Amino acid sequence: MFSEIITIGDEILIGQIVDTNSAFIASELNKIGVSVYQISSVQDDKMHILQALKEAESRADIIIITGGLGPTKDDITKHTLCEYFKDTLVENKEVLAHVEGIFKKHITTPISDVNRMQAWVPSKAKVLHNEYGTAPGMWIGDKGKVVISLPGVPFEMKNLIKTQVIPRIIEEFRRPFIFHKTIVTYGMGESAIAEKIEPLETNLPSFIKLAYLPSLGSVRLRLSAKGLDRETLFLQMNDEVERLKSLLGDLVYGEEGDESIEEVVAQLLKKRKMTLGTAESFTGGKIAEQITALPGASAYFKGSVVSYATQTKIEVLKVPETIIDKCSVVSAEVAAAMAENLKTLLKTDFAIATTGNAGPSKGDSDADIGTVFIAVASPKGVVVEKYMMGSHRERIVQKSVNKAFEMLQKEILKF
Amino acid sequence: MFSEIITIGDEILIGQIVDTNSAFIASELNKIGVSVYQISSVQDDKMHILQALKEAESRADIIIITGGLGPTKDDITKHTLCEYFKDTLVENKEVLAHVEGIFKKHITTPISDVNRMQAWVPSKAKVLHNEYGTAPGMWIGDKGKVVISLPGVPFEMKNLIKTQVIPRIIEEFRRPFIFHKTIVTYGMGESAIAEKIEPLETNLPSFIKLAYLPSLGSVRLRLSAKGLDRETLFLQMNDEVERLKSLLGDLVYGEEGDESIEEVVAQLLKKRKMTLGTAESFTGGKIAEQITALPGASAYFKGSVVSYATQTKIEVLKVPETIIDKCSVVSAEVAAAMAENLKTLLKTDFAIATTGNAGPSKGDSDADIGTVFIAVASPKGVVVEKYMMGSHRERIVQKSVNKAFEMLQKEILKF
Repeated sequence: MFSEIITIGDEILIGQIVDTNSAFIASELNKIGVSVYQISSVQDDKMHILQALKEAESRADIIIITGGLGPTKDDITKHTLCEYFKDTLVENKEVLAHVEGIFKKHITTPISDVNRMQAWVPSKAKVLHNEYGTAPGMWIGDKGKVVISLPGVPFEMKNLIKTQVIPRIIEEFRRPFIFHKTIVTYGMGESAIAEKIEPLETNLPSFIKLAYLPSLGSVRLRLSAKGLDRETLFLQMNDEVERLKSLLGDLVYGEEGDESIEEVVAQLLKKRKMTLGTAESFTGGKIAEQITALPGASAYFKGSVVSYATQTKIEVLKVPETIIDKCSVVSAEVAAAMAENLKTLLKTDFAIATTGNAGPSKGDSDADIGTVFIAVASPKGVVVEKYMMGSHRERIVQKSVNKAFEMLQKEILKF
Repeated sequence: MFSEIITIGDEILIGQIVDTNSAFIASELNKIGVSVYQISSVQDDKMHILQALKEAESRADIIIITGGLGPTKDDITKHTLCEYFKDTLVENKEVLAHVEGIFKKHITTPISDVNRMQAWVPSKAKVLHNEYGTAPGMWIGDKGKVVISLPGVPFEMKNLIKTQVIPRIIEEFRRPFIFHKTIVTYGMGESAIAEKIEPLETNLPSFIKLAYLPSLGSVRLRLSAKGLDRETLFLQMNDEVERLKSLLGDLVYGEEGDESIEEVVAQLLKKRKMTLGTAESFTGGKIAEQITALPGASAYFKGSVVSYATQTKIEVLKVPETIIDKCSVVSAEVAAAMAENLKTLLKTDFAIATTGNAGPSKGDSDADIGTVFIAVASPKGVVVEKYMMGSHRERIVQKSVNKAFEMLQKEILKF
């Protein structure tokens, strides 16, 4: 059984926004065993949507459409669905009451006829209640084929997927189980790894697939298993993961579940009731930002000093000027001093510090672009590593943030 | 003339990664007058890619494919292109020398036959030199129809688009001009705005389109003009923009070009040779991170104190405990003190400070979730604003970051 996703909106096709809706929907469908065959982004245009629907229906059983709803889009999706299903619009009393309620409560301008039109839905559609907005979700179809239409506003769409669409698919469709397991490796390129694990890859059972996902400084290997017998799948998957890990040896950095490295670190700190701060130079607050993006970060994160200017390193972080003069501002010594002094300043158990040159031009040091020092201070002292991170600004920063979390994780595990 | 984008990769279809490549490519194509008709994400599967190619070619003249290259993907795109164009692979000496050079310089494992296979390309393809990687770009086709295949790694793809693909399209295709202009409004909903500007919308010339883009707290109105006569387009577009602005009155917040608000602020600061720092509580370093994501930020950005814990506000930012006790840590008084003290601490001209409650649970204050205070200190003093930002953590942070930049821009313009 396959599904397809169709996103409607010129703003995607002119590159004004990135389509993040599709990845969210695909990930949620995967979790319940529904594979996505294709994702298509099409224009706010009836003929184009009709064509996309026809193509999608020839390949898939579940079609999810986002966007093209709302007064100023001429509710193009609704009209197109009527044409596709040879249907007409009828007023839905519950939706009307909901739209009127939202206007009464949250909106200062008076409700108009175009707003009331949001309550008109194709007569064959089951309405999916949109708690956070005025455009209702719609579920049309039967006999194992269904078209689901959702608003394009991400937080309205997400809520509809979680509370309405997924539960209904679970109820109405028999689905296989899908497991994914990702192994993170460092230190070897994609093709060298491919040679190393060739015996395993050629002997994988047909219901398990292996994918290589090279990214900054690492290669992630994803195993995906799909089948109807949950237990067999699970056991076989575990076998293959173990076999893969023994072939890879110390290239394996860890396994990746649904958790990011920030979440792993957060769990470790909370369990130990220990705290963290960061002293960031060229990473510019990105480490702090990734930490505080998690709810509840205040339990273990005290703060950060983003010492972008050398003067800030001296005056706020109290890095001795003599060290900077002798070793340069991009040096192991400065990274170590930043970490230790931040730890003292914020009274934390751990501190991460970064100093380096992310380019494009050289800053307050002569270090080559891509030269990076990362330090982690802990109650046991401070460790510093030097890295050469290439020449691409964005990548230098992101690779360094990843490295910093890795180094921190290693240090926390000593306690 | 239309183009289409096909992205290849199971990782997109299982929702493991968001397809950001398409938005980049679409935006670059738009800038040179090439519209994108459809974007399709398909599987690492020859039959699927062939079908997508066939469908795309029936609608578009320029087809850009990303992904499906590299040894561990079985170079599926290359083999598929051979089948599609009834072609065979031949070894390209320049690519081989480049691949061998990369291995010699950057990679510790020895080069293998699979790596050397990267130098084999369809005989009909013109090679597009991939400076940053081993998989070459390819340009196949003529008579006004072309298929362009690029690696999926974003920074390799981006470089190929900018240095090879766009210049060659400009050379080989006659293209119309496309202008976009976006007007940002605050304070009124989508449908109320639609009513307000109805006379303009119904009388727009056929070559100018209007789109509504509602987002956090604002509605952006995008006018897009497309045509062969650059001058007429430009003048008419300016007319419509002026008419739109006069209909909207003081709802208009500003116009949006290709520049982000960080870039606008950066220009303003550089021109005035003035400097900035941030004191961030619940925004967790996100403002600093957005500023330092721009190359050259060290010219005006000195640093930041992310005072996530109350203790950090007291000990590093020297916010008097008496103020916190009396007014609460989420208060105008604390925001103002944070901004002024940061400005003194880092010796900057401007300082932004944020304090608030982003939820999901209440922190060191009793303030309702969504309560936010933003302060901007300048040589003329300090301004503070209170906002209620809703209840969704991520949105509270992002809306506040946007607001902070807006407030800063206003203050800088006073100098």
